[in-house]
Amino acid sequence: MPKVYFYPDNRGVKVEDGENILRAAVLAGVHINASCGGSGTCGKCRVAVEQGDVEAQDSAKLSAEQVAQGYALACTTAVRGDVEVRIPVEVQMGDSRAALEREHRAVTHGSVLTSKDLSELFGDFDLDPVTHRVYVELSVPSLEDNLSDLERLKRELTRVHGIGDFTVDLACLKKMATKLREADWKVTATLMEGSNGECPRLIRLDAGDRSGKHYGLAVDIGTTSVYAELINLNTRESLGRVSEYNAQVSCGEDIISRIVYSLKKDGLTRLQNLVTDTINRLIGRLLEKSGVDRNDIVYMVAAGNTTMAHLFFGINARYIREGPYIPTVNFMPTVRAADLSIKIAEGARVYYIPGRSSYVGGDITSGLLASGVYKADKLTLYIDVGTNGEMVLGNSEWLLACACSAGPAFEGGSVKHGMRAVKGAIETVRINPDTLEPMILTIGQIKPRGICGSGLIDILAELFLTGVINEKGKFDLELGHPRIRESGGQAEYVLVWADESAIGEDIEITEVDLDNITRTKGAIHAGITTLLDSVQMPVEAIEQVLIAGGFGRYLELDKAITIGLLPEFTEDKVKYVGNGSLMGAHLVLLSQAARSSAKEIAQKMTYLDLSTNPSFMDNYVSALFLPHTDTNSFPSVMERIKERSRV
Amino acid sequence: MPKVYFYPDNRGVKVEDGENILRAAVLAGVHINASCGGSGTCGKCRVAVEQGDVEAQDSAKLSAEQVAQGYALACTTAVRGDVEVRIPVEVQMGDSRAALEREHRAVTHGSVLTSKDLSELFGDFDLDPVTHRVYVELSVPSLEDNLSDLERLKRELTRVHGIGDFTVDLACLKKMATKLREADWKVTATLMEGSNGECPRLIRLDAGDRSGKHYGLAVDIGTTSVYAELINLNTRESLGRVSEYNAQVSCGEDIISRIVYSLKKDGLTRLQNLVTDTINRLIGRLLEKSGVDRNDIVYMVAAGNTTMAHLFFGINARYIREGPYIPTVNFMPTVRAADLSIKIAEGARVYYIPGRSSYVGGDITSGLLASGVYKADKLTLYIDVGTNGEMVLGNSEWLLACACSAGPAFEGGSVKHGMRAVKGAIETVRINPDTLEPMILTIGQIKPRGICGSGLIDILAELFLTGVINEKGKFDLELGHPRIRESGGQAEYVLVWADESAIGEDIEITEVDLDNITRTKGAIHAGITTLLDSVQMPVEAIEQVLIAGGFGRYLELDKAITIGLLPEFTEDKVKYVGNGSLMGAHLVLLSQAARSSAKEIAQKMTYLDLSTNPSFMDNYVSALFLPHTDTNSFPSVMERIKERSRV
Repeated sequence: MPKVYFYPDNRGVKVEDGENILRAAVLAGVHINASCGGSGTCGKCRVAVEQGDVEAQDSAKLSAEQVAQGYALACTTAVRGDVEVRIPVEVQMGDSRAALEREHRAVTHGSVLTSKDLSELFGDFDLDPVTHRVYVELSVPSLEDNLSDLERLKRELTRVHGIGDFTVDLACLKKMATKLREADWKVTATLMEGSNGECPRLIRLDAGDRSGKHYGLAVDIGTTSVYAELINLNTRESLGRVSEYNAQVSCGEDIISRIVYSLKKDGLTRLQNLVTDTINRLIGRLLEKSGVDRNDIVYMVAAGNTTMAHLFFGINARYIREGPYIPTVNFMPTVRAADLSIKIAEGARVYYIPGRSSYVGGDITSGLLASGVYKADKLTLYIDVGTNGEMVLGNSEWLLACACSAGPAFEGGSVKHGMRAVKGAIETVRINPDTLEPMILTIGQIKPRGICGSGLIDILAELFLTGVINEKGKFDLELGHPRIRESGGQAEYVLVWADESAIGEDIEITEVDLDNITRTKGAIHAGITTLLDSVQMPVEAIEQVLIAGGFGRYLELDKAITIGLLPEFTEDKVKYVGNGSLMGAHLVLLSQAARSSAKEIAQKMTYLDLSTNPSFMDNYVSALFLPHTDTNSFPSVMERIKERSRV
Repeated sequence: MPKVYFYPDNRGVKVEDGENILRAAVLAGVHINASCGGSGTCGKCRVAVEQGDVEAQDSAKLSAEQVAQGYALACTTAVRGDVEVRIPVEVQMGDSRAALEREHRAVTHGSVLTSKDLSELFGDFDLDPVTHRVYVELSVPSLEDNLSDLERLKRELTRVHGIGDFTVDLACLKKMATKLREADWKVTATLMEGSNGECPRLIRLDAGDRSGKHYGLAVDIGTTSVYAELINLNTRESLGRVSEYNAQVSCGEDIISRIVYSLKKDGLTRLQNLVTDTINRLIGRLLEKSGVDRNDIVYMVAAGNTTMAHLFFGINARYIREGPYIPTVNFMPTVRAADLSIKIAEGARVYYIPGRSSYVGGDITSGLLASGVYKADKLTLYIDVGTNGEMVLGNSEWLLACACSAGPAFEGGSVKHGMRAVKGAIETVRINPDTLEPMILTIGQIKPRGICGSGLIDILAELFLTGVINEKGKFDLELGHPRIRESGGQAEYVLVWADESAIGEDIEITEVDLDNITRTKGAIHAGITTLLDSVQMPVEAIEQVLIAGGFGRYLELDKAITIGLLPEFTEDKVKYVGNGSLMGAHLVLLSQAARSSAKEIAQKMTYLDLSTNPSFMDNYVSALFLPHTDTNSFPSVMERIKERSRV
């Protein structure tokens, strides 16, 4: 990995080959002015490359003379080897601030579950998928040996493979006679073992030996995104993972608006079709990528929240939304893929990982399975912050779950310039404590269009740390900074001026926005506190924190702690598990024991309904301050505030 | 029952109220000339009603004077009380012949299984259908008691009814939330127990208490006719039985021609739709008749031959017809009625009684179950003569089955004026041994259109007994009778003259026809002999003969013996079981133990393939004489021949 060394900060950082200098600066905790999100249009991030290989793009923002002198725009210049970069004074931040940043960067990331962790996790379970593909060569029938086709097949499967009695799909019987004869009695039988209320069953018959082509599909159906992974069920090998936005997004951003949509005429059918289309597109991409035949994907395991489950299966979801919030079903029956219009092998089945309640679904069960919480000795807090926030506290003995709507604010809703984490969304923000000028980075490094969840957390944290807002989230208008202004009766901070934004107008964050973000962070913190209160344990009792979910991937621990989204967990306790839901589905595909464990997890979880919990509202109100009413519980944040005052 | 007394024969018979005098005469063994089939058009059956109530129709064949004198046409005069009838000399048969008839009539009918026999049979099995309908009142969910709808239902079913875990149909889940709430949480769950490779399963949920409305449908799918019976699964009560021709008949009369048709483009689908339509029409009639709601018929048990099974399920039947005659499946999986387009309750299932081989199907298994052969101490011969002839020899220890194509001749095929047993078919024929004139009766007593199976057996027997044909089935042209003639190079007997037939031409029976009938009767006799040969037993070892099937109902034992279709069984050994296939389906609907027995029967039967059996051809050739090459085995028939010669 190339190393990038910054002068005059005298600070270095290792980055991926091809990474641009602006991101390297963020990683190193070095401030470079950059207001266009990294799109190369503002020209403010000019740096001098003093040594090493870079790949710079031409820019109208640099004169020929500047280029000759070795200047480049940090945002559009890729690192191709060890590089030394000097940041011109006018582009640089104050040194003290940069030093502080680096320290905090150190606590920003807990460790991420590595592929080694995963293989250990998967190693807990023997490879034992619910489906089998076995090759048999049948004797040709004669007048003396005139068993029916099915009985002949059964006889041979018993004789050669020790397989007991099973039932058979009608669809499989319809073509059996032709298939056996055309295949010259050499066929591959695909059987599904009896478990979870299913019957042992012959689901497919194929000509020739296809026993080596035995694939399964793991799918995480998120409210916002759907992930699919193709897995070789004979070798555990992953043949690719793809994702796409859940096409249901067009009908509403969160589960509540989806449920509302589902109650319209044909709404449920439309939502079902949309998610099915999404999954089928992902399947198409996986097939293309892997060269696997669609008809060799004989099983699918899906995980997702309870509403996604209802909409995917076409089940009335109305009462998930209406008190007392009752789903039709937490333990879905196994159904034919064809009944859900999922285009994998004819005869293939779909299993959905069971959930616990309307707001703690199969995605959480799946994540608890994949991250090993259900067998942990350590007291663990599992947090999945996606469109919803679900939290589970527990270990191998007990599991206590709750959920709150993390929802609209972090996903871009209820914030003036909020947006989902797509191209053009501001995802990283630093504010120079001296100049109060922002450094912003957008997804895709194009001109900013709005602000996504991680950007919002950054903004709240940075505005608070730089004293632009106080602990109540109110702006200090006396700072007299041009970016801090009042508009339409409310105070706001201009993050991007109109001429540098993609939308042709200022991108600002208002006090109302900050209030909404604070409510969301408050709800999550209060959820965690309420879980702890319920078992009468202090936050220090938590020995391990696992952060999962799409949002979790972008969550920086120190920022989350700074705003009081999370209690002050130490770095060593925190792990990012990534897409726990998909990983659990992957495990269940590979192992019937994992499937049984998932069922046990769903049954074992105790669901704590926050809406009726007496202490939740108290905890919530206390959490509406930055970082929290109880400042003693945030000593490190308070220390930084103090440091800031000293500067 | 009214009694009809005939003069000058001095013979009486009890008949149903409303029976006509011509049929009474047949029953009494009294000959009345009647050549129009009982349609009232020939006017030959004129009788004098001397005493009692009759209901005569006006007829142009009787003068006002004759009516005034008490004359009536026997065929169109209904008996309404005890009646005395005198047959005019010109209408009468010779006395000796009539006496002979009566004697034989005595041995014609074995006993028919009575309803008492049936209830004993059914009493063997406890009422224990595979489906249950249970009423539950659920507690209304609350935040404290927030189980999912399905778990709530399970909890209550376990608590109140001790029902264990089960899976659930997706269709049932889709509407569960609405259904429970609209029903104010008071619902009837319809559950199917796990057996025969099925899973215990919730198949329906209905508002209110419908536990008392628990119905099943038994269906016999015959090649020619389909029978359906609606049964109350709580009380065993039959709510009606209806039948209709299998609409597949339009695509071929026997299973071979159906299979040929199924191989045409869309042929299989068409055949499947035709039989489904037939069954749905029968269901419609039963619903109308009984007032039962379609949605309360929650299970269907069907029985039929193996080809019918394949066509009903839409399974490729090609290899049933091609050597070595292998069906795809003998043990059909249970499938959703909706998957077969059968219009009973949504969620209802269809079970098909298992068969043994391509030519010994579920109808035989079902009949063996219903008639108790599988548990009989007596060595029993079970014969089902329909479009095919199946024979099973055995008892509680063993069962040996074979099949031959009884087929086209008895069903009207391969006979010049042959037809199925529908209106206008000649079903009864007597030939006056003195005049060689026929007395014929048609189904529906309309002008004759052709001859059905029982008519053909009658004709062969009567022509043989009266010496019109010899033991080789050749006509005695020297008799010089106007009805016996040569036409187109072959001899024939004119049964109906053109002016008395419905088709405007003579209805005759030719030597080729007689040959075809003889082949069919020979095949059945040879089948029986071959079964006996296989176990090295004499015909006398058979202690009980059970005759089932549509054709069996019309089969007269003495006629069947006269032509050598059956060996000389004594009357006391023979029972007519009627539609054994339907009765077995009825039993299986009521009892899971009966279902297990059916499975055991199908597994236990040994199938003897006649086409490869070395002794079958010998037996067949020997059986091509009337009554048989071995006249010693037919002493009673030979005695009658001798009597005839003496007359």
